[in-house]
Amino acid sequence: MGVEIERKFLVDDARWWQLAANEFSYLRQGYISADPKRIVRVRATEKEGFLTIKGISTGAARAEFEYTIPREDAETLLDTLCDNIIAKRRYLVEHARQTWEVDVFLGDNEGLIVAEIELDDENEQFELPGWIGREVTEEEKYYNASLSRRPFKSW
Amino acid sequence: MGVEIERKFLVDDARWWQLAANEFSYLRQGYISADPKRIVRVRATEKEGFLTIKGISTGAARAEFEYTIPREDAETLLDTLCDNIIAKRRYLVEHARQTWEVDVFLGDNEGLIVAEIELDDENEQFELPGWIGREVTEEEKYYNASLSRRPFKSW
Repeated sequence: MGVEIERKFLVDDARWWQLAANEFSYLRQGYISADPKRIVRVRATEKEGFLTIKGISTGAARAEFEYTIPREDAETLLDTLCDNIIAKRRYLVEHARQTWEVDVFLGDNEGLIVAEIELDDENEQFELPGWIGREVTEEEKYYNASLSRRPFKSW
Repeated sequence: MGVEIERKFLVDDARWWQLAANEFSYLRQGYISADPKRIVRVRATEKEGFLTIKGISTGAARAEFEYTIPREDAETLLDTLCDNIIAKRRYLVEHARQTWEVDVFLGDNEGLIVAEIELDDENEQFELPGWIGREVTEEEKYYNASLSRRPFKSW
């Protein structure tokens, strides 16, 4: 088990794009349970599968249990047990010796770009890049589990 | 992924007891999702933890994905994310070269004893031991996920 501490921001400035690493991962993810108190997420990347359980959020912190599973299992779980699949491209951007994950949503969430930084503890300092917009860490509608049910395009 | 094919029977005759192997496992299990269409089960034995996802049942068959997880994770998941924990002792009984699992429920389900046999396919033949009672394979109230919400003692 771990505790996931992450802060999440909107991105509405295209400058990040030139700073991103060339490679991106294509992620598909869905929810067997989208209840914010007990999230069960399935994720498939090009190479791997993950099963992740998240407990309740307290500010930016959340209990998280993540297990690697066969990619084929993840695909089958997504196709048979998850109603709404989220697809996104994830880019990594280095800034001030920290790594930001920039998620460019596709499909029903196209138009939404979100940047996240994972912290070791809630008081860890970090420098905001100039291309970062408003913070949405605690806004439930931006949770990926919420986006699977109420996608960005429907807002 | 596998397909779980099992048949489940009540046990209301004490004869099985003398035939059981001496050892039993003490199991605690709970449900992060108890929705019968997408069950997410956490199980802790004395030594191991398991995370199991089950899809919809068709007769005795059901898609099942089971992953071993650290026992401490299983205990934490049970204690923090599962509302109603089922506890039972599981005995193994050999009969006609097949293994029956006999679950003796504890706590709120005390008084319920259920025997299960796992089959390789739905047409596999098996011999019913004399101590076996009525079949309950398709009775939803005997699903462990249902027992976690509506325990036997409340019937």
